[in-house]
Amino acid sequence: MKKQKRTTIYDIAKKLNLNASSVSRALSNNSNVSEATRQLILATAKELNYQQNSMASNLRKGQNQTIGVIVPHINQNFFADIIAGLEEVTYQKGYNLVICQSNESYLREIKCVNTLINQHVSCIAISICADFEDDSHLRNIKEHGIPLIQFDRVTDTLDTFKVLNDNEQASMEAVSHMIEQGYKRIALLEGPQNLNIFRQRKEGYLKALKKHNYPLVPELIKENAWTKELGAESTRQLLSLPEPPDAIFASTSDFSALGVLEVATKKGLKVPEELGICGYSNEPFTEITSPSITTIDQYSVSMGKAIANLYFQEIDFMDNGSHPQTVSIKPQLIVRSSTLRNKNRV
Amino acid sequence: MKKQKRTTIYDIAKKLNLNASSVSRALSNNSNVSEATRQLILATAKELNYQQNSMASNLRKGQNQTIGVIVPHINQNFFADIIAGLEEVTYQKGYNLVICQSNESYLREIKCVNTLINQHVSCIAISICADFEDDSHLRNIKEHGIPLIQFDRVTDTLDTFKVLNDNEQASMEAVSHMIEQGYKRIALLEGPQNLNIFRQRKEGYLKALKKHNYPLVPELIKENAWTKELGAESTRQLLSLPEPPDAIFASTSDFSALGVLEVATKKGLKVPEELGICGYSNEPFTEITSPSITTIDQYSVSMGKAIANLYFQEIDFMDNGSHPQTVSIKPQLIVRSSTLRNKNRV
Repeated sequence: MKKQKRTTIYDIAKKLNLNASSVSRALSNNSNVSEATRQLILATAKELNYQQNSMASNLRKGQNQTIGVIVPHINQNFFADIIAGLEEVTYQKGYNLVICQSNESYLREIKCVNTLINQHVSCIAISICADFEDDSHLRNIKEHGIPLIQFDRVTDTLDTFKVLNDNEQASMEAVSHMIEQGYKRIALLEGPQNLNIFRQRKEGYLKALKKHNYPLVPELIKENAWTKELGAESTRQLLSLPEPPDAIFASTSDFSALGVLEVATKKGLKVPEELGICGYSNEPFTEITSPSITTIDQYSVSMGKAIANLYFQEIDFMDNGSHPQTVSIKPQLIVRSSTLRNKNRV
Repeated sequence: MKKQKRTTIYDIAKKLNLNASSVSRALSNNSNVSEATRQLILATAKELNYQQNSMASNLRKGQNQTIGVIVPHINQNFFADIIAGLEEVTYQKGYNLVICQSNESYLREIKCVNTLINQHVSCIAISICADFEDDSHLRNIKEHGIPLIQFDRVTDTLDTFKVLNDNEQASMEAVSHMIEQGYKRIALLEGPQNLNIFRQRKEGYLKALKKHNYPLVPELIKENAWTKELGAESTRQLLSLPEPPDAIFASTSDFSALGVLEVATKKGLKVPEELGICGYSNEPFTEITSPSITTIDQYSVSMGKAIANLYFQEIDFMDNGSHPQTVSIKPQLIVRSSTLRNKNRV
């Protein structure tokens, strides 16, 4: 079955002895082509009866709009699920989603922002990187008249629409649960404190200790323990203390909690009897470890939907940057075997 | 510390009583603004001494180029690692990466393609969806003069640059390994046969049986068992057979293998003694299940780098669509506990 022959940009390129990409650029008014060349290409396109692909032409008329999302990582279920939720709503509305990842690098984050500005996306949703320095690139988004929504990891230096998780409350509930299970020395693995989410989780830990009249033991708090490797390293240090902890709250991530579990298992410590472990984010693997890991579900799909709904509901306000709103999602503690020392107390 | 005040598009919008986004569109020559409005905006911008942000202006001059990648899912480590490899190279070259996911939907895949064409990306790399129908949207990429690289899941109806994994060979090695471990009735969970990768894996299974003079037993082959749930369902059916299998090769994915393991564990079957299990892709969780799961590593980071290197090395050929090359990456069998019935035989 042969398709009907129609003039393509290759035919134009061949006739003029030019690259197809130059022809494409000229036909889409890209400024990288000289005016003389453009006129020549347009004349030849007319002569050969070239018809722009109607789908692409519709796109150019703005009938296919795009939302850009920037996340630190795509390979964490938390962010992948946010994107899934976002996409569920945007797809129904006929919008497309393009995704950029910053890899926790501030310079890459700036590049992602510039790429999306250059692509004239209808809206940018961003969760900032751990390396975040200042908000000038985010101001740049607003200066280009592009609605900006911050989610999860946000900077408060900028007044924008936001979708957040109540990290402090969730963290307080997790630590209170461990205290109720009878753990006496609960260590905290904390994330980079320049990020709001990790400051809030630490605050929840401190509040739970205070509420239950537990002393704050500085040596039980480990900084920047937010990957599996760093979680493992911090655990080795904690377990070498003269008075080691009997529980570890990996407030940074489930990956860090997995590092804790692996070190505990290697050292022959019984979990949850001798060491309680709680992670953060409800990554799917926390169900299949042995024992399964207590964690916090952030309802990431709902967060994604909330971002998209915020955009579609408030688009008129966003367009002129006024009336920023904050939507807060309440996470939930998921109690599993790794902290269930005393079944009667749950 | 107050920043120096400079004219923004908001100032122009306010003066003309227009939306900031209209001003942005006019200043970036977007065709959604009437010529009269555009002229008014340009005049006002001049009057207010508006200066375009230099970073954005550089972008518009093409100094910040972008590669678009379309994958079925971002939340499988396989694709996330390919993207990481791609990004490692493109970032060094000063290129940005934007990612779209098709969610295994043909219609969404078309939308992703159109979005990236509309954004005039420098190159599109795609791994097609399970729902794939025909290649007209991919031809559309070529007709727009945009270099196209297919990877992993590809259509052979189109002659493009390709980066592939040797699925048949890997699959043959996996099944041969199970045969050498003494398994006698090896079932196959197969993926949608419209995708090249799943046809190749089935071919490898058939070749291994033939090589070892094992009979082909049709009832041991289960179609479309490529999620955890479908893998579990197929396993229940297989284990209900009068003569059930003593090994299951989940050639579709490790997720499917996880479904097999969960059903086997629930039924009290000993793995690997009573049932051998092999997955595909080396997702990180296969190391932490109990027992750990034998699988196939596809060197996905290397695949991503190969895609980017292909682009940068062959850019001149790609520009006019000639000399397509295929790069093939050899995957590797990772033997773990779930198939290690006979330790002396490894």
